[in-house]
Amino acid sequence: MSVRIEHDTFGEIEVPADKYWGAQTQRSKQNFPVGKEQMPIEVIYGFAHLKRAAAVVNKELGKLSEVKSDAIVKACDDVLAGRLDAHFPLVVWQTGSGTQSNMNTNEVIAFAANQYLKEAGSEESVHPNDDVNKSQSSNDTYPTAMHVALYNEIEVKLMPALDKLRNTLKEKEEQFAHIIKIGRTHLQDATPLTLGQEISGWRYMLDKCEELLNTSKKELLNLAIGGTAVGTGINAHPEFGDRVAAQIKKQTSFDFVSSPNKFHALTAHDEVTFVHGALKALAADLMKIANDVRWLASGPRAGLGELSIPENEPGSSIMPGKVNPTQSEMLTMVAVQVMGNDTVIGIAASQGNFELNVFKPVIMYNTLQSIYLLADGMNSFNDNCAVGIEPIEENISHYLNQSLMLVTALNPHIGYEKAAHIAKTAHKEGLTLKESALQSGYLTEEEFNEWIKPEEMIHPK
Amino acid sequence: MSVRIEHDTFGEIEVPADKYWGAQTQRSKQNFPVGKEQMPIEVIYGFAHLKRAAAVVNKELGKLSEVKSDAIVKACDDVLAGRLDAHFPLVVWQTGSGTQSNMNTNEVIAFAANQYLKEAGSEESVHPNDDVNKSQSSNDTYPTAMHVALYNEIEVKLMPALDKLRNTLKEKEEQFAHIIKIGRTHLQDATPLTLGQEISGWRYMLDKCEELLNTSKKELLNLAIGGTAVGTGINAHPEFGDRVAAQIKKQTSFDFVSSPNKFHALTAHDEVTFVHGALKALAADLMKIANDVRWLASGPRAGLGELSIPENEPGSSIMPGKVNPTQSEMLTMVAVQVMGNDTVIGIAASQGNFELNVFKPVIMYNTLQSIYLLADGMNSFNDNCAVGIEPIEENISHYLNQSLMLVTALNPHIGYEKAAHIAKTAHKEGLTLKESALQSGYLTEEEFNEWIKPEEMIHPK
Amino acid sequence: MSVRIEHDTFGEIEVPADKYWGAQTQRSKQNFPVGKEQMPIEVIYGFAHLKRAAAVVNKELGKLSEVKSDAIVKACDDVLAGRLDAHFPLVVWQTGSGTQSNMNTNEVIAFAANQYLKEAGSEESVHPNDDVNKSQSSNDTYPTAMHVALYNEIEVKLMPALDKLRNTLKEKEEQFAHIIKIGRTHLQDATPLTLGQEISGWRYMLDKCEELLNTSKKELLNLAIGGTAVGTGINAHPEFGDRVAAQIKKQTSFDFVSSPNKFHALTAHDEVTFVHGALKALAADLMKIANDVRWLASGPRAGLGELSIPENEPGSSIMPGKVNPTQSEMLTMVAVQVMGNDTVIGIAASQGNFELNVFKPVIMYNTLQSIYLLADGMNSFNDNCAVGIEPIEENISHYLNQSLMLVTALNPHIGYEKAAHIAKTAHKEGLTLKESALQSGYLTEEEFNEWIKPEEMIHPK
Amino acid sequence: MSVRIEHDTFGEIEVPADKYWGAQTQRSKQNFPVGKEQMPIEVIYGFAHLKRAAAVVNKELGKLSEVKSDAIVKACDDVLAGRLDAHFPLVVWQTGSGTQSNMNTNEVIAFAANQYLKEAGSEESVHPNDDVNKSQSSNDTYPTAMHVALYNEIEVKLMPALDKLRNTLKEKEEQFAHIIKIGRTHLQDATPLTLGQEISGWRYMLDKCEELLNTSKKELLNLAIGGTAVGTGINAHPEFGDRVAAQIKKQTSFDFVSSPNKFHALTAHDEVTFVHGALKALAADLMKIANDVRWLASGPRAGLGELSIPENEPGSSIMPGKVNPTQSEMLTMVAVQVMGNDTVIGIAASQGNFELNVFKPVIMYNTLQSIYLLADGMNSFNDNCAVGIEPIEENISHYLNQSLMLVTALNPHIGYEKAAHIAKTAHKEGLTLKESALQSGYLTEEEFNEWIKPEEMIHPK
Repeated sequence: MSVRIEHDTFGEIEVPADKYWGAQTQRSKQNFPVGKEQMPIEVIYGFAHLKRAAAVVNKELGKLSEVKSDAIVKACDDVLAGRLDAHFPLVVWQTGSGTQSNMNTNEVIAFAANQYLKEAGSEESVHPNDDVNKSQSSNDTYPTAMHVALYNEIEVKLMPALDKLRNTLKEKEEQFAHIIKIGRTHLQDATPLTLGQEISGWRYMLDKCEELLNTSKKELLNLAIGGTAVGTGINAHPEFGDRVAAQIKKQTSFDFVSSPNKFHALTAHDEVTFVHGALKALAADLMKIANDVRWLASGPRAGLGELSIPENEPGSSIMPGKVNPTQSEMLTMVAVQVMGNDTVIGIAASQGNFELNVFKPVIMYNTLQSIYLLADGMNSFNDNCAVGIEPIEENISHYLNQSLMLVTALNPHIGYEKAAHIAKTAHKEGLTLKESALQSGYLTEEEFNEWIKPEEMIHPK
Repeated sequence: MSVRIEHDTFGEIEVPADKYWGAQTQRSKQNFPVGKEQMPIEVIYGFAHLKRAAAVVNKELGKLSEVKSDAIVKACDDVLAGRLDAHFPLVVWQTGSGTQSNMNTNEVIAFAANQYLKEAGSEESVHPNDDVNKSQSSNDTYPTAMHVALYNEIEVKLMPALDKLRNTLKEKEEQFAHIIKIGRTHLQDATPLTLGQEISGWRYMLDKCEELLNTSKKELLNLAIGGTAVGTGINAHPEFGDRVAAQIKKQTSFDFVSSPNKFHALTAHDEVTFVHGALKALAADLMKIANDVRWLASGPRAGLGELSIPENEPGSSIMPGKVNPTQSEMLTMVAVQVMGNDTVIGIAASQGNFELNVFKPVIMYNTLQSIYLLADGMNSFNDNCAVGIEPIEENISHYLNQSLMLVTALNPHIGYEKAAHIAKTAHKEGLTLKESALQSGYLTEEEFNEWIKPEEMIHPK
Repeated sequence: MSVRIEHDTFGEIEVPADKYWGAQTQRSKQNFPVGKEQMPIEVIYGFAHLKRAAAVVNKELGKLSEVKSDAIVKACDDVLAGRLDAHFPLVVWQTGSGTQSNMNTNEVIAFAANQYLKEAGSEESVHPNDDVNKSQSSNDTYPTAMHVALYNEIEVKLMPALDKLRNTLKEKEEQFAHIIKIGRTHLQDATPLTLGQEISGWRYMLDKCEELLNTSKKELLNLAIGGTAVGTGINAHPEFGDRVAAQIKKQTSFDFVSSPNKFHALTAHDEVTFVHGALKALAADLMKIANDVRWLASGPRAGLGELSIPENEPGSSIMPGKVNPTQSEMLTMVAVQVMGNDTVIGIAASQGNFELNVFKPVIMYNTLQSIYLLADGMNSFNDNCAVGIEPIEENISHYLNQSLMLVTALNPHIGYEKAAHIAKTAHKEGLTLKESALQSGYLTEEEFNEWIKPEEMIHPK
Repeated sequence: MSVRIEHDTFGEIEVPADKYWGAQTQRSKQNFPVGKEQMPIEVIYGFAHLKRAAAVVNKELGKLSEVKSDAIVKACDDVLAGRLDAHFPLVVWQTGSGTQSNMNTNEVIAFAANQYLKEAGSEESVHPNDDVNKSQSSNDTYPTAMHVALYNEIEVKLMPALDKLRNTLKEKEEQFAHIIKIGRTHLQDATPLTLGQEISGWRYMLDKCEELLNTSKKELLNLAIGGTAVGTGINAHPEFGDRVAAQIKKQTSFDFVSSPNKFHALTAHDEVTFVHGALKALAADLMKIANDVRWLASGPRAGLGELSIPENEPGSSIMPGKVNPTQSEMLTMVAVQVMGNDTVIGIAASQGNFELNVFKPVIMYNTLQSIYLLADGMNSFNDNCAVGIEPIEENISHYLNQSLMLVTALNPHIGYEKAAHIAKTAHKEGLTLKESALQSGYLTEEEFNEWIKPEEMIHPK
């Protein structure tokens, strides 16, 4: 392997010649041979948005030459276009401030910028700390990159996936609005509802979670930038934080602002914890939906069998012809993963000390994983399962017709206790509800026919 | 023990003669000898608000006689005044719909109402199911009682406690605004800030959590009432849900409304999960604050010793004269409990099936515990610790004066690498920063004196 | 309220005259008005075992007069007999070392001992710190009391409950060994097994958890006693730890020993974390069992309906005659609570600093809650549900006979792909397996009858 | 991209020509575009061990020709040598039984085996289901592969890493056995101990966790193989499970056995939950150790400064010369991740239904991640931090000499209350302990000098 020599304040070190990174990145690679989880590229893009904005603002404020600033901007655009992905090799399990990923970004951007400067024959050269990181600290840049990346992923990946699944459910809800089926509470037969109503409960979960996410994601719009080392803003211009936030807003079209309290912004991750609470709520709802789907599709002959779902692959390596609700299984595993991630984030957020919380990479890794797993999971569940859900009307009618819980409609007429007597007798003696009702003598056949109409039990009266 | 005979649809059963509850409560007592955790009385009060409102609305809608309605209202007022607390003996670990606590409430209210009716010589009598529970099901009443109780506890207990602690911190922040101290990141010396700024980070955490709670608690204003058995509203008047919500709003002055989708309201607890995400964010912040306080107060002679906190009790049974940061210890234990409760709630919320989630009591128990522990914990921490926090200025100055990280202020003048060289030399050779700076030859004494001023490092420039 | 004046090193304080506790207990009551969760009485009994043993050993070692020692022993016996329960008013949310509960115990025992001494006309008097706490510190006594209490509760409450439920399942397993039913994997029909075999899976879960608990509970036999303030054993005799452990063993008949490393014993709670891992494994298994039971008992007419379970109470306040699997619901809520408790314990165990972990009460509270909820939950589930489980053979046969997955038995004869073709055709065309098999031409009727025998599919061949 | 056509019971599908996988793998790739987390290669190796053993045993039992068996064995050896890693493209988020990874393995092994057969001119050919999967089901193979892989990773990766760190600590413990330092409990000064003793607490944590892991890992030796589709062993020879386990034991040298109850083996993951409880205990201990190290190394001038740790990289992008405890930060983040993983595993283990738990891949992914993160984390922490820990004796002596808690040694001589008076006066008036003691008049200077000797306070007497 061909190498070049780089240096930092610790001295010289060999770096692969074909890589843009510098000494600190190389040191981190060597000092942290831990795990397989790379610092997510989305964080790097968050950094690139920030470094770009900082270069623009530092130029405006007269802190950085136009030449350097322009070169840094071009380098950042390269990062954002994904052209330099191979130059960010660090793992999540590094220093808890993400300093080394900040430096990795500074180094790669400086390298790329210097190439542009060299090509242009400029005599200036960009320094990772003094120029790319100017007016910044890892302590305010990493949390800024986190918020930029998380907000973006929620907007660009998660919300569209949620929307797609919600729309599918909305269609099914309307399509099956007329199908009356038995309700089930405690897994026991209950009063009827329509299949459309049942699906509307799922759909409204997604409406609700969209609302929760829209409400909570706003918290991510607060950026730490401007706080520098400990929140005081040392070595930054008083307007730096606000201007950079405004510039990032311009670059991303998201309404980022500079956080009103930078001491909080460096040490607290209550905002991410809160957003992840909404992600957990979504996970819980998806688990419920996926479970309902697979239970209603259980069978084909010894289950509930009210729904059919797409058959996507052979289900068993031993049982020929078996088809399983695999998309539900994927989605419930995703949901459980999000629950565990939520545990991580809460603990990590609680462990700050003094001016800094040094559990930032693990918070980022888990939150981001939750976002993309939920997004991918909803997309896959939608495309490979939800769109193909169909009622099996024969079974649905069968359950409805033999149900005893239609008896509930008698309460207002004969009271709870007599109604209970009718239902219990039917259950014990294997009668239909009507047989038992008439046998009880509490009502006439005419009354029974008038009072027990499933189609009138699916709404208030 | 003197008993009376009560009956339900299962038959007769002996009930203690001095208790108002009926057959179903008694059965539950006998069937669930599990744990020591009683169904929180706050849930019962939530039920009482609801039963009262239902009686009013059922009268308005012509479903309940004025006599019965008035008697129920009086009985509910007795419950709400705490006069009947002894009659709600059931535990959390019962049916997952809370049916038995709903019936306990129905039975006790019916009993009390019937006493009023008897005293008044009325011939009418109130039935637990047919009258107190009219137009309702456990499936919509329990989640309604949950939301009413949780919203109330957040408003009445939690927010004032948060406010009190925040105000104390605000005062300290202002009082100590002039005290410059060393910052610490990664537990290592960093650039300076004021003690007021440090405390402002804590104070802003509480500002932020107040915002998160205010945002999220609104979700609890949605009430399930009107959904009855499975969400369809069977056996309820079409206006019942809206009218009852409006009546509860009138009774409590909180802006309750009827949930727009009752299928969701019975099966999903995303709203509580979301609110508890805000509680977890608060717990994480309190853990951070309590940890900072105890670390800064560590010592008295072998710790950081920057703060003094009230001495409330002997700290040790063996080490005489020892005083410990016990309020911090209490608060961090509370925070950890809230984290565990959050795990419970997320799992429980994910386990609904079809038309009902039957993990409601465990969700309620944990959420309520989080609320009162956080409220009590903040009150106690405020009164017994935070109000008495004082700086130990001698130690604070000592640390500030010998710090090496003031070197950061040299970056804009001599660059990061030379500055690093100065700091490292000082560290290795045991020099002061000034000694090392002058020895380096990178700057003059005059420049040092002008550039290294802690009081100019505590804000952007 | 009548009071008396007590004092400690902080000065004088009023204490209710009818209570045995002293100044430090009173201070703690006033300083920690937090929550409703009292320090579990089981911890107090653990302390009493320890204080009793310490008094015996201190006498043996010549550190305590026989008179004082005997009085302390008598007082401890009073505590252990439950006669002094009213004198332990402190809550969980106190100092994290449990110092105040140690002092509460010291104070109450001293008070009771002094009463005995006074009655006997002795001139000696017992001091809470100098006598009852002699050779001890809260830092080694609280973890000792924890281990003693937890081991005892596991032995006395949990294991018998587990054993009872396991035996019930064992009986059912044998009783239903002959009933062949359809298996279900992924909620989809699979190859058959006997109901006895299915239940054997549940029973073996309990066998396994018994093994896990027996293996892990031994870790609790290590006692911290002898470490005193920081683990060095300052102010204790070199043999104190070993002798006290031996004495506690004599008192309880459990094989307690003195921990080989007291620094670990004061700062680490890996042993409890590990034991709770076994409790969580049990919780997970119970959740699975309880879920299986309620799903198999789902219906009565629109569910799986393979099992009948006892009807214990009216299931619904609105749906007459409804019966719900309430014991399963209780048990699954218990299981979820244990999962949350496990989160608490892991976090708390990770938060030690230097010579002490100050999250002991919250660890104790959660572990103990898990134990008694699991114990009570299994007892109640056993008595009120498991013992009454009966098969509904009509439904079981129905499912078995129409299943398609019996096709699996054809694999060795005609290969997986042809077998799959038969099953899929049957499914699509609504045929029985035999109809489809014969139609396929892959085998003769004779072959079908020989190869497809459910009773030969329930074991290897 | 060049493709070839493969088929399964669902029909034909295009597969990349250069890949060994078949139709079912391809379908899964297309149906589950979810996340970035590949099914860990360690699971595939677990499968390869199993498939190899099954081929050997099926041959022995006369179920598979020698030619086929040998070809399968060769193909498995290729997998185990890592030569076919590129052919296992599936993600974790697939069917919850891992069926598709089982089929991926079957397909790749069949393909490789058929190449060998073709090369050898054989006319036989191997079928993924009928030959490689013979006598097996995904339902018993996936959990078998899990246990084989997890046991192996614990043995090969985790235990050596634990051992290495333990040995380093053991060396430090001995090396620093003579250095007396102040103890700290509640972060407050306490009685002294040696640095060696303090480190022995850390070392013993690792001894203890080694014990917990050795105890618990044995549970993984139980293999599901032989249970096939639902636990009954349908389509397998009665000796198949035992023989395959014995063969895997021969291949791996680990003492695997066939699980005594296969219904349990397919539906319960209590064993993994239990093992992960030990991993969580280790994580909690490592968090404590890493925290102690960074706190003791805090400073350099405004922290505790009792230890120096290696300086591995520049600590800050803004503060020149700053060095941070980055290995501690990495290790504490790892610990928190393991806590979250533990939440996942517990929930997942609780969600089995009937004859199968379909959360296997998510259990595997998280358990394996915990193992390699803990292993890598300990290795890195050891090599880059622990080996270089050195005491800063000047600071250690300073703290010891000015401590007040040495007063504890006076308890046996003058009693707790007088000793407290001395310590409190010293604290309030800024005296040394000796000054305060003599001023109190409770003891003479001679007595003080005899009773207050730190070197006699570090062990019982």
